Amino acid sequence: MKAVVLFSGGLDSTVLSYKLQSENAELKLLSIDYGQRHNCELASGSMIAKSLGVPHTVIKLPMLAALLGGSSLTDNSISLPLGHYAEESMKSTVVPNRNMILLSLAAGHAISLKFDTVAYAAHAGDHTIYPDCRPEFADAMENALSKADWNKINLHRPFVKMNKSDLVKLGIELGVPFEMTWSCYAGGKLHCGKCGTCVERKEAFELIGLSDPTKYKS
Amino acid sequence: MKAVVLFSGGLDSTVLSYKLQSENAELKLLSIDYGQRHNCELASGSMIAKSLGVPHTVIKLPMLAALLGGSSLTDNSISLPLGHYAEESMKSTVVPNRNMILLSLAAGHAISLKFDTVAYAAHAGDHTIYPDCRPEFADAMENALSKADWNKINLHRPFVKMNKSDLVKLGIELGVPFEMTWSCYAGGKLHCGKCGTCVERKEAFELIGLSDPTKYKS
Repeated sequence: MKAVVLFSGGLDSTVLSYKLQSENAELKLLSIDYGQRHNCELASGSMIAKSLGVPHTVIKLPMLAALLGGSSLTDNSISLPLGHYAEESMKSTVVPNRNMILLSLAAGHAISLKFDTVAYAAHAGDHTIYPDCRPEFADAMENALSKADWNKINLHRPFVKMNKSDLVKLGIELGVPFEMTWSCYAGGKLHCGKCGTCVERKEAFELIGLSDPTKYKS
Repeated sequence: MKAVVLFSGGLDSTVLSYKLQSENAELKLLSIDYGQRHNCELASGSMIAKSLGVPHTVIKLPMLAALLGGSSLTDNSISLPLGHYAEESMKSTVVPNRNMILLSLAAGHAISLKFDTVAYAAHAGDHTIYPDCRPEFADAMENALSKADWNKINLHRPFVKMNKSDLVKLGIELGVPFEMTWSCYAGGKLHCGKCGTCVERKEAFELIGLSDPTKYKS
């Protein structure tokens, strides 16, 4: 397999990259700076790519935030909601059509490199507040990607039946440096410990009785 | 209908915009600067949008050319092929996965604006050298777009059974200012008259016995 990995520098896509490398896939990690306020994840991504010894490209698309306005992830004038993903307020973190945009860019890069696969870390814990995290959306994209070029581009998403605790377990087996990964939506130097993604990260370690190496503000 | 129109400033998408306006659709024209050498089409786009009185946004994504390298449309080190589209050499003008990327950006913008439709000017004369101009690809994208958000985004492509001469005829009925539209891949001040898209533009007028108001170098 020759795969472009949609790689944020977060926990999920880091475990995915380690898994694919352990399977001897040829990898290119791709991060997209779409104006997200937590773009410190991109610096985490660079460190992780170095530790993996895999090429990594960061594409800056700062004008995307204007095109896709209205998300608290990209618009600093909208306050970031705290608490669990299930809460109504978390809907403000939706970036319109983000996954289709990221997958289409990764597929274009894969075609350009003559690779055969786009890999991403969709998992069973992905949340129903994000319409573009639904399996039926990913299935439709898999079909579209198979027709985007003369050679089929495969959409590889090996985690769709695993939850975040399963990913932590797998990451430990693979020697993932979790302390390098970045999850927090708020940005800053330390994880805030309060936003949806921090809450979920903590829970993933707690649920399986492991200690999380992340330093949280609270 | 509230539609984001993928709008290049070329003949096809200009006729589409005039047609939709004549049907009283609410429109937002979207042009993407992906590093194409013929970005003079974007200046044409601005003039046409003004003459239509419709809002127009140009999004600059200059790093896309690096991500999607290897096309003569975006890489000035590769010479632009001349002659008819059917020729093998024209394959160098393929930009990997361009249509999926453009449609996904337009859909993100539509969701952000609470619009219901993405419109684009795919037509029966689109060429088989472009895998992402095939109807089966567009059908797959239509399905994916219907699942990208909670509210369905429609993919409107009213020209799929029309050829370029049909578009010229329709444009004349609608009062399209063809002299403002830009087709030539080579860029410059005048249309070159020799590249695939110039050859095709000339033929579209000739086939129906109309004079083309375009000024060609040759």
